[in-house]
Amino acid sequence: MSKKWLTKRSEDYSAWYNELVEQADLAQTSEVRWCMVIKPYGFAIRENIKESLDKMFKNTGHKNAYFPLLIPKSYLSKEADHVEWFAKECAVVTHHRLMTNPNGPGVVVDPEAKLEEELIIRPTSETVIWRTYKDRIQSHRDLPLLINQWANVVRREMRTRLFLRTSEFLWQEWHTAHATKQEAIDESNLMLDVYDDLMKNFLGIYGIKWQKSASERFAWADDTLTIEAMMQDGKALQSCTSHFLGQNFAKAFDVTYKTKENKEELVWATSWWMSTRIMWALIMSHSDDLWLVVPPAIAPLHVVFVPIAKTDEDLDAITEYLMPIFESLEKASLSISWQFLDKDIDIVYKIDDDDQKSPGRKFAEYEMKWVPLRVAVGPRDMNSWVLEIARRDTSEKKQVAIEDAAEYIQKTLYDIQTSLYETSKSRTNENMIYVDSRDEFVSWINDNKFVLAHRDWTAETEELIKQETKATIRCIPLNSDEELGECIKTWWDSWKRVLFAKAY
Amino acid sequence: MSKKWLTKRSEDYSAWYNELVEQADLAQTSEVRWCMVIKPYGFAIRENIKESLDKMFKNTGHKNAYFPLLIPKSYLSKEADHVEWFAKECAVVTHHRLMTNPNGPGVVVDPEAKLEEELIIRPTSETVIWRTYKDRIQSHRDLPLLINQWANVVRREMRTRLFLRTSEFLWQEWHTAHATKQEAIDESNLMLDVYDDLMKNFLGIYGIKWQKSASERFAWADDTLTIEAMMQDGKALQSCTSHFLGQNFAKAFDVTYKTKENKEELVWATSWWMSTRIMWALIMSHSDDLWLVVPPAIAPLHVVFVPIAKTDEDLDAITEYLMPIFESLEKASLSISWQFLDKDIDIVYKIDDDDQKSPGRKFAEYEMKWVPLRVAVGPRDMNSWVLEIARRDTSEKKQVAIEDAAEYIQKTLYDIQTSLYETSKSRTNENMIYVDSRDEFVSWINDNKFVLAHRDWTAETEELIKQETKATIRCIPLNSDEELGECIKTWWDSWKRVLFAKAY
Repeated sequence: MSKKWLTKRSEDYSAWYNELVEQADLAQTSEVRWCMVIKPYGFAIRENIKESLDKMFKNTGHKNAYFPLLIPKSYLSKEADHVEWFAKECAVVTHHRLMTNPNGPGVVVDPEAKLEEELIIRPTSETVIWRTYKDRIQSHRDLPLLINQWANVVRREMRTRLFLRTSEFLWQEWHTAHATKQEAIDESNLMLDVYDDLMKNFLGIYGIKWQKSASERFAWADDTLTIEAMMQDGKALQSCTSHFLGQNFAKAFDVTYKTKENKEELVWATSWWMSTRIMWALIMSHSDDLWLVVPPAIAPLHVVFVPIAKTDEDLDAITEYLMPIFESLEKASLSISWQFLDKDIDIVYKIDDDDQKSPGRKFAEYEMKWVPLRVAVGPRDMNSWVLEIARRDTSEKKQVAIEDAAEYIQKTLYDIQTSLYETSKSRTNENMIYVDSRDEFVSWINDNKFVLAHRDWTAETEELIKQETKATIRCIPLNSDEELGECIKTWWDSWKRVLFAKAY
Repeated sequence: MSKKWLTKRSEDYSAWYNELVEQADLAQTSEVRWCMVIKPYGFAIRENIKESLDKMFKNTGHKNAYFPLLIPKSYLSKEADHVEWFAKECAVVTHHRLMTNPNGPGVVVDPEAKLEEELIIRPTSETVIWRTYKDRIQSHRDLPLLINQWANVVRREMRTRLFLRTSEFLWQEWHTAHATKQEAIDESNLMLDVYDDLMKNFLGIYGIKWQKSASERFAWADDTLTIEAMMQDGKALQSCTSHFLGQNFAKAFDVTYKTKENKEELVWATSWWMSTRIMWALIMSHSDDLWLVVPPAIAPLHVVFVPIAKTDEDLDAITEYLMPIFESLEKASLSISWQFLDKDIDIVYKIDDDDQKSPGRKFAEYEMKWVPLRVAVGPRDMNSWVLEIARRDTSEKKQVAIEDAAEYIQKTLYDIQTSLYETSKSRTNENMIYVDSRDEFVSWINDNKFVLAHRDWTAETEELIKQETKATIRCIPLNSDEELGECIKTWWDSWKRVLFAKAY
């Protein structure tokens, strides 16, 4: 388990990513090509993200529930765009029994056990949830209905990449119903702010909160908001979406409520999701040629103490020496200014006294997993009442007096957290370019920049630009000033710049 | 939403259960007969159980990971008992695409999109997890490997009942690997204690920790431990299992490790699970003819304050009056002596000032959901500096001085919690009968008692008794004294009583 150097990002981004995910013990491909295995360290990071997001959802009045994994085919049969959006490439269950192979070894599908109606593994749950809402919503008293589900979903992907694109992935999907249009729009805006809070303060990722263009929008939405984040290679990742769905679902599933005045009205709806894809964004935003980089706010382990002990007596003495620090760390915490969460993060530390592994081996292991702070303690440190604390991001080592150690740890974790965000933010701002000519546009897009440019507002031009440059409109500025200009493709009039980029 | 009286348990247990689950807003059947919808209130209870259990797992050194939902058919083809145990009745995925119906409306399965190899939705994950372990385990340094998964699984059931038996259900499954036999046995015993801690101190259910008989044991286990709990109707529920698997999985999946002495050895294994079935146990253990009953330790809401206000000014005055109590409740908590968890439970309270609902309607709603304490506050209470606190389990109402309210609430929640456990315990002990004759045996079993009786140790006799009386051997006392006796069926020799009961 000694350190194997990663392929450099400049040489091969894809190889770098795969090696890093393997070495940091985050996930692995499975023999079942549709699915991935999320390994304990990767899953611990994901659990921290989930836990915080879940609390933010609850703090904003939302509740969790659980809906069926399997959806009858007829639910998806209503309209052609249902199939397109919900289940074109999907997993279809047709039988319910295996039997011993009568003609050889192994088992075969029992041909007698064909289902009357095929079932689809949920690619998303709108159809099944909205059927439930139809019964649940009768009166204005039942609204708003603010329900979330944490679930696995399946959409068949041919070319898989861990976390970014696998046929099975984990996500949360919210589906809300409201009495008024304004309430639904407010909800959709609010939840985008919740995601942004998570990305900024927890994941340390600078994201751009903007609106999707009509052609990139979810077909059932009247408006789709998104947070686009710039990865280190300059490409964009859509990290989440928040949809204002108008009354489209209410019409499709015939969901109405009685107003106070006893009038029958259609409900207004929103939906929004974030998936395990965010793990990919996390890696692509912060990690470098050497290692995985994990912001302290979501790190499963903050400080590891590695005793340099030759004998059991040494180890006992070191452990005793560290006791007051452990006690201080129990009381310390990582304070972050959240908008939707008022919880400080406990500092997680451990002493690794496994005598099966050498200190060097331990150093390598914790570096691969990017534990932010490492403290090696030997008899020499004990004589001088200091600790040598190694900071993972800058590789700086510092001698800290034992009585100052807990405070130093607390402060340094905070520094690391904020500096990761600042790096992400300046990278994005430095690589976001205002462009007014077609040649410049092509050249900057090829250089993987975020390009703010004018375009006419036709879908045809958007498609042409995409075909020529592989750039798509990632989003349209929310609340930005209007500015007259000319489309970089057609020279037709435009009144607002939009953000073009190549995207994952 | 006014209270509808439930069918009495003595009249029809099944109707009582279904009505209660509906009225308490716990779950509902889905149009997809394979699956259930877990509604927000039911899911909140389940989340509290999951959260505590998860912390106990982590406190005993275990880690979470995530494995594929889909399993290739060939994984299950090795041996006949694989199919029997892992996937006889299951969901078989055969295709990966839907298409617009060329001959009519709706969508059909695309016949071109047949999978080369069928995939099975996991009925349990041994096959896929142990294939991963084969790569992961090389050396004694990789052991023990203590991994848990929280997941949905599918096993087709024809006759479904909410929480007790549905084709899709939620569970956790642990799969551990160890270097030595003793370590694996210790693990299996330890985790049974963890489950018992949860059942006793959290769910308030008295369970009997015993061993399964050879014929009731998981086919791949060398030993299966279980906790059997007596439901209110006298029937037994197996609430969890903990398996010592010997080297059976290591052999089947060829998982070996290098010892310190560089010898190649097979690993030893355990597995254990608890599912959403525990929700069923919870309802069947505590609820009465009137209502759902939920132990305070897992209740999503502990105290609800219902203001009796005619005007906005009244409401403001009441809210202000309650402020000091809210402040005290923030600091109060429900202290429980856990073995594996040292966390006090925050007291969750809320003031329901929804002016769309009458106080009476609110009372009914919170009673249906069994919020343990209800406080109605009107102008009269404010004049006398008291609160009227209604206790849900005894229906007792008490005037409590405002400065004592927080302490009274804290103490009463504790009382309710412990009294639920004591009731469960005495019911079990009062209905557990020592029996030495066949006629008595049949009569007590028909009367739904737990019967401790002798039997010869043959599977044939066990089967005969089951056919005659519907009673199965639920478990065999662990560590109990030997006692000579005669089998109630064959009069052959026996050296230990076992527990017979009818079971769910």
